[in-house]
Amino acid sequence: MLSFECDYNEGAHEAVLRRLIETNNEQLPGYGSDKYCDLAKEKIKEACGKADAEVFLLVGGTQTNQIVIDTVLAPYEGVVCANTGHINVHEAGAIEYSGHKVLSLPHEQGKLKADVLKKYLEIFHSDDTKAHMVYPGMVYISHPTEYGTLYSLDELTALSEVCKEYDIPLYLDGARLGYGLMSSGTDVTLKDIARLCDVFYIGGTKVGALCGEAVVFTHNNAPKGFFTSIKQHGALLAKGRVLGVQFDTLFTDDLYFNISRHAIKMADKMREVFKRKNYKFFIETVTNQIFIVLENKKMEELKKYVSFSFWEILDSDHTVVRFASSWATRESDIDKLEELL
Amino acid sequence: MLSFECDYNEGAHEAVLRRLIETNNEQLPGYGSDKYCDLAKEKIKEACGKADAEVFLLVGGTQTNQIVIDTVLAPYEGVVCANTGHINVHEAGAIEYSGHKVLSLPHEQGKLKADVLKKYLEIFHSDDTKAHMVYPGMVYISHPTEYGTLYSLDELTALSEVCKEYDIPLYLDGARLGYGLMSSGTDVTLKDIARLCDVFYIGGTKVGALCGEAVVFTHNNAPKGFFTSIKQHGALLAKGRVLGVQFDTLFTDDLYFNISRHAIKMADKMREVFKRKNYKFFIETVTNQIFIVLENKKMEELKKYVSFSFWEILDSDHTVVRFASSWATRESDIDKLEELL
Amino acid sequence: MLSFECDYNEGAHEAVLRRLIETNNEQLPGYGSDKYCDLAKEKIKEACGKADAEVFLLVGGTQTNQIVIDTVLAPYEGVVCANTGHINVHEAGAIEYSGHKVLSLPHEQGKLKADVLKKYLEIFHSDDTKAHMVYPGMVYISHPTEYGTLYSLDELTALSEVCKEYDIPLYLDGARLGYGLMSSGTDVTLKDIARLCDVFYIGGTKVGALCGEAVVFTHNNAPKGFFTSIKQHGALLAKGRVLGVQFDTLFTDDLYFNISRHAIKMADKMREVFKRKNYKFFIETVTNQIFIVLENKKMEELKKYVSFSFWEILDSDHTVVRFASSWATRESDIDKLEELL
Amino acid sequence: MLSFECDYNEGAHEAVLRRLIETNNEQLPGYGSDKYCDLAKEKIKEACGKADAEVFLLVGGTQTNQIVIDTVLAPYEGVVCANTGHINVHEAGAIEYSGHKVLSLPHEQGKLKADVLKKYLEIFHSDDTKAHMVYPGMVYISHPTEYGTLYSLDELTALSEVCKEYDIPLYLDGARLGYGLMSSGTDVTLKDIARLCDVFYIGGTKVGALCGEAVVFTHNNAPKGFFTSIKQHGALLAKGRVLGVQFDTLFTDDLYFNISRHAIKMADKMREVFKRKNYKFFIETVTNQIFIVLENKKMEELKKYVSFSFWEILDSDHTVVRFASSWATRESDIDKLEELL
Repeated sequence: MLSFECDYNEGAHEAVLRRLIETNNEQLPGYGSDKYCDLAKEKIKEACGKADAEVFLLVGGTQTNQIVIDTVLAPYEGVVCANTGHINVHEAGAIEYSGHKVLSLPHEQGKLKADVLKKYLEIFHSDDTKAHMVYPGMVYISHPTEYGTLYSLDELTALSEVCKEYDIPLYLDGARLGYGLMSSGTDVTLKDIARLCDVFYIGGTKVGALCGEAVVFTHNNAPKGFFTSIKQHGALLAKGRVLGVQFDTLFTDDLYFNISRHAIKMADKMREVFKRKNYKFFIETVTNQIFIVLENKKMEELKKYVSFSFWEILDSDHTVVRFASSWATRESDIDKLEELL
Repeated sequence: MLSFECDYNEGAHEAVLRRLIETNNEQLPGYGSDKYCDLAKEKIKEACGKADAEVFLLVGGTQTNQIVIDTVLAPYEGVVCANTGHINVHEAGAIEYSGHKVLSLPHEQGKLKADVLKKYLEIFHSDDTKAHMVYPGMVYISHPTEYGTLYSLDELTALSEVCKEYDIPLYLDGARLGYGLMSSGTDVTLKDIARLCDVFYIGGTKVGALCGEAVVFTHNNAPKGFFTSIKQHGALLAKGRVLGVQFDTLFTDDLYFNISRHAIKMADKMREVFKRKNYKFFIETVTNQIFIVLENKKMEELKKYVSFSFWEILDSDHTVVRFASSWATRESDIDKLEELL
Repeated sequence: MLSFECDYNEGAHEAVLRRLIETNNEQLPGYGSDKYCDLAKEKIKEACGKADAEVFLLVGGTQTNQIVIDTVLAPYEGVVCANTGHINVHEAGAIEYSGHKVLSLPHEQGKLKADVLKKYLEIFHSDDTKAHMVYPGMVYISHPTEYGTLYSLDELTALSEVCKEYDIPLYLDGARLGYGLMSSGTDVTLKDIARLCDVFYIGGTKVGALCGEAVVFTHNNAPKGFFTSIKQHGALLAKGRVLGVQFDTLFTDDLYFNISRHAIKMADKMREVFKRKNYKFFIETVTNQIFIVLENKKMEELKKYVSFSFWEILDSDHTVVRFASSWATRESDIDKLEELL
Repeated sequence: MLSFECDYNEGAHEAVLRRLIETNNEQLPGYGSDKYCDLAKEKIKEACGKADAEVFLLVGGTQTNQIVIDTVLAPYEGVVCANTGHINVHEAGAIEYSGHKVLSLPHEQGKLKADVLKKYLEIFHSDDTKAHMVYPGMVYISHPTEYGTLYSLDELTALSEVCKEYDIPLYLDGARLGYGLMSSGTDVTLKDIARLCDVFYIGGTKVGALCGEAVVFTHNNAPKGFFTSIKQHGALLAKGRVLGVQFDTLFTDDLYFNISRHAIKMADKMREVFKRKNYKFFIETVTNQIFIVLENKKMEELKKYVSFSFWEILDSDHTVVRFASSWATRESDIDKLEELL
C-alpha cells in the first residue's frame, strides 16, 4: 500500500533520532534550560538573521497557535485570518477556548490579501459602534497555506505594511515552513519572514521531527511571563531536551532545508506524473501538497492501492483529494504511483 | 558531578528508544489512531484489570491534569485537593486557566485524609449559602504525593468511599505511579487504583519515557467529546505513535514495573546511606524521593559535588533538600555519594 | 430635538416605575427569592402556556446570551447563527470569552434559513475530520432579527425541525420580542415560540423596563447548577426584586403586549410617512425598526433636527440609517417628523 | 416580623427613586454616555479628591470584582487576598472563571495584614520555581471586611507600601464602603482610600441604590479597552442612566455619607442593646454588621420573631449569627428588638 496521505506518517529523520540516542544518557536540567535547547535557539536565530529574536520550543501546532495568539492579544482582542485558516477550521476551537474570537475574512487561494485586510481595518476603525465589537489585535497567516499556496514577497510585504500601519502584530504559522521555503516557486526566504513578521513558528512535526515547533518572536517582543504562560497552558515539557536535541539537529548543516528540498523535489515529480496522466488540478500549488479532482469511480478504484486525503466534494460525480509528499517520501513510491494511475 | 536532582534528568529507557527506532519508518495514521496506540491501550487495560476502562495518551502531567479536571467538572464546579497538591502549587494556575477553582484542604504529609474531606463536604452541603460557592465536583490526589508519601489501601479505600457517598469522582495523579507501586512500603496495587478511582494517569515522563502520560477512565466514563477536548486544549499529538510506541514498550514484559523497582531499590540504598551517616530525614518516605535536613554550611559544601533540589527553608541554619532516584540511577553513583557524605 | 435613535432612550414605563415605588419599603429576601420574582415567573409561564417551563430573570441581553449559551453548550461545542447575529457582531466577543466559537452562516434578511442550517449540519456530520472541528451544539436566532425582520411560523417550525433532527437546542434571542409578537406582519405567537424553542428570552430593557431579560427554558431543561452559574458569571442581582417587580408588572393585564402594540402602531405610522414622502426603504420590516436609504446631503441636513442611527454606508452618496419606535414614542413626534421630511 | 438579615432587604433610598422618576422621560443616549453618568463621575472624583481618577459604573459586586481583577491582572497572574475574602468564598468562582487563581493568605479578623503579605511576597520571589507558580499580580482587600472589621489608616498605609515595594496594584472592595467611612471607629477617609489604593469601588447596592457599584481607578490607570471589556463580560447596561442617576443622587449633598451614618447610628444602638442584655459578641465590629453568639435554643426561639443571618456553627450548643443595620433601618425596630431579647 502506497501512502501519500499526509506529511506526518513516519517518525523522525534518522539524523534526529540518532542525536536523541547519542544524548540520551546525559543528565540535563529540565524545562528547556538544557544546552541543546540553547544551541537550537542560537542556530535558529542565526538562520533567521535576527540577533534580537527570542525563540521558544513547543510541542505541537495547535498548542503553539493557542499560546502565541492568547499571550500576544489583549483580552478584548481577536485574531484576523482568512476563513480557510487552520485556527478557524481545524483546531477544535482552541483559540476561542482561550477567550478570543477568530475574525475571519474571505480568502484567495487560501491567502489573506493585503487589500482585503486593509479594507476590513478601515471599516472597523470608522465604525461608531466598534467599542462593542471585537478589536482586531493580531493578523494570522499560514505559509504554506492550508491550500498549499505561498505568499509572494510582494504579498507578504504588503500585509506587513498594513499591519504596521494599524500597529497590529503579524503572525505566520509555519507548520510546513520548510516546504514553503524550498519551493521552486517562492521568492520568500526565512530571513524575509523574520524581518516582515512579528512572530512565526518553524514547524518541526511535519518536517523531520517526532514533534516540536519553534516559535520565533522576531524583535525581543516575547510577551511578559511567556514561560509561565506556557506552563499555564499545559504545554511545558519536563524533558525540554527532546525538543532541543531535535531542533539543534535540524538546524545543523542545513538539515531542515535539505530534507524540505527533498520533499519538494518529490512533489514536483508527482505533479509531473499527474500532468502527464492528464489529471485535473483543483488548485495550482508549488509546495508539498497537491490537490487533484478525481471522478468518484476512479477515486474508489485508486483507494485500494494508495492512500490519500479527502479534501472536499466538488460535485455529485467528482471529489477533491490531496496527495502530500514529505521529507520521508521515496522516489520509488512515486514511480509506483505513476504505474497505478 | 553526581546528580540526584530529579527523576527526569535522562532521556528514555533504552528499550523505549529502540522501539522508536524500529518502528520509525512505518507509515502510520496520525492523531493516536495507529496500531501502537491501540496495543498500548489494551496492555494498560489488561494491567489495570479493567476491560471497561478507556485509555488516552497525553504528553505531559500539567496538561493531563488540566484536561481531565476541566472535562470531568461541570463549569460551576471546582476540584478538591490537599493544599500541597501539584495542581495547587506548581502548575502556574493551569486549572484556574480552564475556569475552575482549586479547593484546597489541609494536608497530612502531603496526603488528603478521608475525614478531612468528609468534614469539608458535610459543612459545604449544610451551608445555606452554598449556591453562591464553588461546588466540589472532583477530588484530586497524587500517589506518590509531592512529599513522596503513599496512601495505604485503607486510606485510599476510605477516600473512595467518601467520594462515592457524595457522588464525586476520585482522580489520582500518578506522575510517579511506578515508584509508588513498586515501593516496599505499599499495599496498593495498580488494580486497586483502577478499582477505587474513577480516573487516574500513569506517568511516563518520570518513568522511562521521553514524554507521555496514560489517562485511564476506569469504567467507560470518559467525558463526551474527550478527543475533541484534547485538540481544543492544544494537546493532540499529530504523531500519536510517539506515545503509543513508548507505552506499548513500557507495558510489555512488565518493563514499567521493573524499571520502577530499580528506582526504589536505588532509593532504599540511598536511604540506608543517609541513615548510616546520621542525616536527619525531614519526612519518612518509601518512594524514590528522599527529603533530608541539611545544615546550610554542609549544603553549600555538598553542592560542589552533587546536585539535588532545594525543597524549603527549615530555619535560619537548616534547609530541606530533596534527593531523587529514577529508573536511570546507577548504583555506583550512590556509592560515590556515600563517600562524599 | 426629535429622537428615533433607539428603543432604550427613555427610562421605564410609568406602571413599572409605580410598582417599584409601591414595593420599595417592603423587606424582601435577596437574590431572586422574593415573592415578586415568583409572581413574575408564574405569569410568564402562564403567558407561554408552559407549566413545565423554568424562568430566570437576568439584567441585560449580552449577559443573557453569554450565560445561556455557555451553560447549554458542552465545553467543546459552539453556537450556530446567522453571520448578522448580535452575538457574532456586537457583543464584544462575549461568547468567545466564555470559551465557545460562534459558527456563523450566511443570512437572508438577517434570518438563518432552515435549509442553510440543514446543509451545514449535513456537511459537518459527513466530514471525516469533524472531531478536529467545533461541534455545533446550539442554534441561535434573534426574533425580531437585527434587521427588524421576523421569522414566519413556517420558517420557525422548519428551523425547529432541523434542530430536533440533529438533537441541537434552539435558542431565540428576544431582546425586542414584544415588537415581534405585536407586529401586524407576524403569525408567530409567544406560545409558538415556547413550543418550538428550547430556550428563549423575553426582552425587558427595550420594552418598558429599566433593565431586565426573562430567560425561559421551555421544558424543565435549565442546565444543572444554573443559579450558581449566574453568580459565577457575575450576573446575580442582590436585589432580585428589581427584576421581579418589573416583570410582574409587565406581565400583569397584558402590559408587555399593549405597550409593544403601541410601538408597532407608531412604527407603522412612521413607515406610512416615509412612503408618502417617497423615501427608499433599505429592507422591508414589520417591527419597530425602519431602515431608510438617505442621500448623504439630506442625512446631514436631517441630523440637525432629528436623531437616528447610522446603519451602514451604501455607496459614496448614500447611507442606510435606522429609525426606531418604542413603547415610549409619542404620536406627535411622528407628526413633527413628517413636517421635517 | 423584624428583619436585620442583611443590608439589601429594601429597595432604594427615596431620594434616589425620586430622581429616577423625575428623569424617566428624558431621552438620553445609552451605554453610560448620558449626562447623569457624567455628573455622577465628576462628583465621585470630587469626593475622592482625585482629578485624575477614572470612574466606571457597574451593576453588582461580584461582577465588579470579576471585571476589575480580570482586566488589571496579566493572564498568568493571580490575586492575593485574605482567605475570608468574598472573592475566595462567596462568588461562585467568578475570579477563576475569568482564568485567574485566588491566592489566599491567613486573615486576622477578616483583614490581610501587611506583614503577612510581605512575607508571602518575599518567599514567592525567592523561590527558584516561581516561574512554575501563579504570580501575585494584585492585592484584594475589602473594607469593611466580610467580618465587619475595618483597616486603620496605619494598616492601610502599610499594605499600600508593601504593594508599592513589589509594584502590585492594591484593590479595595467597598461593597459596604459607606458603612466603613461613617463608623465612629475609623480614621480612614474616602480621600485616604483614593490616595492609597490603585483601584476601589464604592458600593451602591448595599447603600441606598437599587443596584450599582462605582469603580474608581485612582490615577488614570484604567486598563486599555476597559469599556469593551465590560461589554465582553456581559456587564454593560444599555440604560446606563439607571446607574448614573442613582450615583449622581447619592453623591449630591452628601446623601451617600448621611444615609451611611444613619446605618452606623442604628448599629451602635443595636450593639448597646446586645451589651445591656449581656449577649456575647463573636467579634468586635464598628460597622453595620454585628456578630453574636447565641445558644441554639435561644436562637430557635428568637427566629420566630426576628430574622437574622446564620454565620457559622461555634460548637454543638452555640451558633454565630449576624445582625445587620442599613440606611433603611428604623429606630423603632431596634426598640422592638430590645423588648424581644
